[in-house]
Amino acid sequence: MASILPASSRSMRRDKNAYNGKRFVHVKNPYLDAMEEDILYHLDLGTKTHNLPAMFGDVKFVCVGGSAKRMKAFALFMHKELGLEGGGEDIEDICAGTDRYCMFKTGPVLSISHGMGIPSISIMLHELIKLLHHARCCDVTIIRIGTSGGIGIAPGSVVITDTAVDSFFKPQFEQVILDNVVTRNTELDKELTEELFTCSKEIPNFPTLIGHTMCTYDFYEGQGRLDGALCTFSREKKLDYLKRAYKAGVRNIEMESTVFAAMCGLCGLKAAVVCVTLLDRLDSDQINLSHDVLVEYQQRPQLLIAKFIRKQLGLRDQMS
Amino acid sequence: MASILPASSRSMRRDKNAYNGKRFVHVKNPYLDAMEEDILYHLDLGTKTHNLPAMFGDVKFVCVGGSAKRMKAFALFMHKELGLEGGGEDIEDICAGTDRYCMFKTGPVLSISHGMGIPSISIMLHELIKLLHHARCCDVTIIRIGTSGGIGIAPGSVVITDTAVDSFFKPQFEQVILDNVVTRNTELDKELTEELFTCSKEIPNFPTLIGHTMCTYDFYEGQGRLDGALCTFSREKKLDYLKRAYKAGVRNIEMESTVFAAMCGLCGLKAAVVCVTLLDRLDSDQINLSHDVLVEYQQRPQLLIAKFIRKQLGLRDQMS
Repeated sequence: MASILPASSRSMRRDKNAYNGKRFVHVKNPYLDAMEEDILYHLDLGTKTHNLPAMFGDVKFVCVGGSAKRMKAFALFMHKELGLEGGGEDIEDICAGTDRYCMFKTGPVLSISHGMGIPSISIMLHELIKLLHHARCCDVTIIRIGTSGGIGIAPGSVVITDTAVDSFFKPQFEQVILDNVVTRNTELDKELTEELFTCSKEIPNFPTLIGHTMCTYDFYEGQGRLDGALCTFSREKKLDYLKRAYKAGVRNIEMESTVFAAMCGLCGLKAAVVCVTLLDRLDSDQINLSHDVLVEYQQRPQLLIAKFIRKQLGLRDQMS
Repeated sequence: MASILPASSRSMRRDKNAYNGKRFVHVKNPYLDAMEEDILYHLDLGTKTHNLPAMFGDVKFVCVGGSAKRMKAFALFMHKELGLEGGGEDIEDICAGTDRYCMFKTGPVLSISHGMGIPSISIMLHELIKLLHHARCCDVTIIRIGTSGGIGIAPGSVVITDTAVDSFFKPQFEQVILDNVVTRNTELDKELTEELFTCSKEIPNFPTLIGHTMCTYDFYEGQGRLDGALCTFSREKKLDYLKRAYKAGVRNIEMESTVFAAMCGLCGLKAAVVCVTLLDRLDSDQINLSHDVLVEYQQRPQLLIAKFIRKQLGLRDQMS
């Protein structure tokens, strides 16, 4: 898919670096290097106001998720899992100057919230990718950990996405550029997907599978829910749609994976999507889990990613 | 546009009430009344856990905006403007159990954050509209107050939207329902737009205009910015696009207005969009206003809406 983008001089320089074994972040924008200052507006960071290489140069893992509270909880959890000093109580929101996103750093792990939906995560990704570029990060792995609706699988199952598909079950993301529509690839990193799946097998009672993830622009009508403010289709049409999705290989539905896969793929980030399912959409539309069950389910992707990161860093496994 | 939706029995009952002079909220979903409980998951509210008529029955104005901090500031400001007792310090986030959205109530005014982008505001609107329906609210006016990029107008100008248009300058919102695409109307309430414009003229040094607002799915490539992580077009192509938008009547660009206009229109809510512009996109892409100027600009839509609400409630004007 890289062919749809003209290589900028910067990204070509970066590619050369790849021969030294380092995989840099590809910013594919020929205008960026000519800018005197780059203000990452929605992160409240900038190249003149912050020393980005000093702040972020050692980042190797970026974990993103919709909810700010959950991403803070993940940062605290990772702090413990990495065996870092202190209880992590002093972990501060690096983006405290804005309430658009939250960002926490613990060792080489960055944890960022992205809000809900393709446009919201897309703004964050543009600015995050520029941040990693300005900070001269290399060999970065990025993982989205989220919640989703399952199709034909038990609630609480963890789905590792092989390919994100759109509402029409197509493995693509349609990006509007000016008034043109460009189609981008939404495959995720095969090797990373397999590594995560292997990790999941080492956790007891941890139902995990690899499948397609459908990404929609809407939680209600777009996902065939019968409980929105607007509903123009029948229960039969809903079930027919979800069953067709299942047949096409879709195992869960969320709202960010296509643009995440497309942008990370284009920018040379090894990327994965790991979502827990909160319900089986063939059975129901509403999420009515008890608070404790919901909390336990939401922790599952975090557990898996923590295990994976510890393994990558050569830390002894606490869980096995 | 209502014709694309089959009238539910509930909405027909509501329509009858309209003859008594009350305009109820139309929930257009025939399945909703059969539900024993309705959990408004992303608001952390529900029909069994909360007495929605008691909590919200008196709501007449709903103001929505992207940022939680800004919507809290607006609630505190309205508290003062309405001459309510106390300083408003005790105004609590009604959705404190979730971090997806924030909601504050002060007198008949509800202030809610919606995050960034069409999908994010759409989830909130589905649940808000159901909330207003369950609470049996009537004669509700809803106004989105936000920030935007201007085209060919001075930064700090306030744009009242007459019609929201998509990236192709079309006055429509394409809603994916299952795997069908349905086109919805994005015109806003003419009378409300005019009333707001009249109000604006009563505020000294308050540059305001009525125009089309373009709503995109993306802040960078979709709005023709040259400063994203990805950029595949030239400065000339960008300017050509923005100038064509201007010719088509577009005066500002943001990321929520089409779905807001479409959903509110279908559900019988009198709706307006009032956004301040933070820059002129013909001149630049980055927002580099000083903190103080940014804060002052962001207050402009709030000032206008406060004046409008005070007028509607028959309160003496403090500002004139």
